[in-house]
Amino acid sequence: MIQLIPPAPRAVTERPHPAKIQLFPRGRGLFAERANRIGTEAAFGLGARVAEVEALGERVIRCNIGQPDYPLPAHIAEALKRAIDGGHTTYCDPQGIPELRGAIARTLGERHGLDIDPGRVVVYPGHRPSIGFAHLAYVEAGQEVVYPSPGYPLYESFIPYFGSTPVPAVLREEDGFGLTREVLEPLLGDRTALIFLNFPSNPTGGVATRAQLREVAELILERTGPHTRVYSDESYEAITFDGHEHVSIASIPGMESRTIIASGCSKTFSWTGGRVGWAVYPTAREAQMHRRLAINHFASISPYNQWAAVEALTSPLSAPAVAEMVRGFKRRRDLVVAGLNAIDEIRCHTPRGGFYVFPNVGEALDTLGAVEAHARLPEEVRRDSSPATLFQLFLLHEYRVATMDRRSFSVLGSEGQHHLRISTATSDEDLAESVRRIGAAAADTAGFQRFVGSGAKLTL
Amino acid sequence: MIQLIPPAPRAVTERPHPAKIQLFPRGRGLFAERANRIGTEAAFGLGARVAEVEALGERVIRCNIGQPDYPLPAHIAEALKRAIDGGHTTYCDPQGIPELRGAIARTLGERHGLDIDPGRVVVYPGHRPSIGFAHLAYVEAGQEVVYPSPGYPLYESFIPYFGSTPVPAVLREEDGFGLTREVLEPLLGDRTALIFLNFPSNPTGGVATRAQLREVAELILERTGPHTRVYSDESYEAITFDGHEHVSIASIPGMESRTIIASGCSKTFSWTGGRVGWAVYPTAREAQMHRRLAINHFASISPYNQWAAVEALTSPLSAPAVAEMVRGFKRRRDLVVAGLNAIDEIRCHTPRGGFYVFPNVGEALDTLGAVEAHARLPEEVRRDSSPATLFQLFLLHEYRVATMDRRSFSVLGSEGQHHLRISTATSDEDLAESVRRIGAAAADTAGFQRFVGSGAKLTL
Repeated sequence: MIQLIPPAPRAVTERPHPAKIQLFPRGRGLFAERANRIGTEAAFGLGARVAEVEALGERVIRCNIGQPDYPLPAHIAEALKRAIDGGHTTYCDPQGIPELRGAIARTLGERHGLDIDPGRVVVYPGHRPSIGFAHLAYVEAGQEVVYPSPGYPLYESFIPYFGSTPVPAVLREEDGFGLTREVLEPLLGDRTALIFLNFPSNPTGGVATRAQLREVAELILERTGPHTRVYSDESYEAITFDGHEHVSIASIPGMESRTIIASGCSKTFSWTGGRVGWAVYPTAREAQMHRRLAINHFASISPYNQWAAVEALTSPLSAPAVAEMVRGFKRRRDLVVAGLNAIDEIRCHTPRGGFYVFPNVGEALDTLGAVEAHARLPEEVRRDSSPATLFQLFLLHEYRVATMDRRSFSVLGSEGQHHLRISTATSDEDLAESVRRIGAAAADTAGFQRFVGSGAKLTL
Repeated sequence: MIQLIPPAPRAVTERPHPAKIQLFPRGRGLFAERANRIGTEAAFGLGARVAEVEALGERVIRCNIGQPDYPLPAHIAEALKRAIDGGHTTYCDPQGIPELRGAIARTLGERHGLDIDPGRVVVYPGHRPSIGFAHLAYVEAGQEVVYPSPGYPLYESFIPYFGSTPVPAVLREEDGFGLTREVLEPLLGDRTALIFLNFPSNPTGGVATRAQLREVAELILERTGPHTRVYSDESYEAITFDGHEHVSIASIPGMESRTIIASGCSKTFSWTGGRVGWAVYPTAREAQMHRRLAINHFASISPYNQWAAVEALTSPLSAPAVAEMVRGFKRRRDLVVAGLNAIDEIRCHTPRGGFYVFPNVGEALDTLGAVEAHARLPEEVRRDSSPATLFQLFLLHEYRVATMDRRSFSVLGSEGQHHLRISTATSDEDLAESVRRIGAAAADTAGFQRFVGSGAKLTL
């Protein structure tokens, strides 16, 4: 099907690539130039920094971690051990064992009212490889990648590497960080090759309604061609609150043939160490291309992990375990949102899903003088940080609470947005204590100024 | 340290990229151009073909599989289950858990007389990612990659993707498929960025002696600069026969700072489904770059798999289990080599390691008329096959023995080399029966000609 695309009004055409941590100098040294163009995820970098602070003697409360703190449900652990005892310890189908691809196809098909051929499914070691592969497979250098900002950092981190053009869809707090027609419309056009969506959202907790997704889908169908792909990151699909339900954009008429549905076991089953993720491609033919990429990169993935994933998707014991975790995350969300909103200098909207809260700390930064302090920093430090980064590091070093700054969730579009991401994947007691410490830190202007002047490293 | 490199005499400068399976047409369609430039490993593609043949009713003996058929040793399986019970089911250090990196550093250090900092180790989901990452990190487009032909296919398959120049080191049977000064010397120069070595070799079973590696190392130190990296694939390190012992080129003076030592648990511990591989980089700084690539691609790898790998590397129960497997592979090697050499049309050298034999089937191809039959094929079939491919497919379809053709192990340099790779990772009975069938097929000229004319697909 050929479709004529009218030239779209374009608000964003050329943008600089995001400034990224530059581990090594440019130019031909030891490493190829391309190796320096790949970004990273700050959340994994922070671990070493937390360890440094703890080495000074006091425990840090980790509100930076993107993994549920619930145990792996026992029936899944048992399935894992059964599969090991059963000798499922060898290579297997590099696309994923048929039993798991079948279970994924059935589960998603039932949930979203779709009829999914298991040949469209590719299983990966986590859902992460499918992000890089989407850039690799669908985006020619110079074409555009649309992604949410704030959003999961890996959508942006691959862009300089592949030489594509970043087109951040900058989400606004006043819209509840939703993806509105007003934001999206000017960004789409015939150069759009790939569009990342992520609901429930990391870091904002936004959950799109069917009506909102219908509006997004209409725009996509209207303004982009049949080869444009939507990468719908549905990793947090199971974690929604207050009657909100996860809807996949693939279920909107016309969108199944454009959409890659990506998810996995990490968040839903509190099993980040299983490294079982998957993507459902529009056609089995597209899955074949990704199967080939998987062969080159991984051969196959642990079959015992895959058998346990079959158990996770099909056992009647899974739903109650997931529901208990979701109840826990709701209780903690309420605790943290209420606690943060009781702090004068902080405003916090209420996430509809996921296990993060994303408070606006703008007034706290005013109180602390963080914007001015940031403006005074040397250019090379300023470039790789933000006022919220200074608050984040102040919290970590002086109040021993690890959080993530706004800038860790897409650099482009982060200018002037003053937020932190706080993970609720830690105990109620620690969360209550974190809120208390954040409140104290937000009023500690003298301490903040002392910290900024102390010579501590002020980038992540 | 800066070193002046004299311009080397060059036998190979520009070579065409290897013709590869072209899944999708070139030019801007659905997929980016680069996606079509990535190759694959034929061994994984053959599975579907074997299944097709078996669907017609008779079992195929699988001599195509690159995985030991021994069970995962019980103490490793137990360690795996203990780690699951211990809750090691979450994200972990993306570089690999310190305990495993420590065990790898100590094990390799003791084996090769090196002092290895665990900060130089990166753990991957299998050793495969480190191959792609070596291309990515060390080779600028246009620079040269030297690799053995015949050799493991992934060294070559990434070359068109990264736009580097392939420089196959064509190994000759009369040299026992060793890497001689005569072959290597003209290939090295100031454009050489990466050199793949693989001993014990897949597919030839070659094991380099210390004297041979010293010669190779001398050439590398003489003709390439300090940024040229040697990727030493030591996956089959534990499987050697007749008193031959695996030596790492990193143990040759001057080479540790140039060499990436890569291996994993798959072959040594008969645990291809564990997907635990590793690479030891020359410096911790280089490992940091690869840690960043690992974060983007995988987050981390299953910690329970890593804990079981610690057990595999440190338990006194491992050595006897490995020794038993090696004895089995030696017995089978002897059985298959003797059996093949008893066939008039086949010559088979004796591998020193690994679990493959690599017979020369040139005379069989003469008897069958395979070279002429291949020359008569349409250009698009001929380009993606070889006379040995026809024999391989004849064996599969008409004699129900699955093998791999020479061309599956580096396309460039395969012209005129007439070999098959036969894996001994199957039972003695099946191997004996395979040899019988290969002998019968090698003399079945009428059947071969009928097969080639039957309309069967004559490429992999």
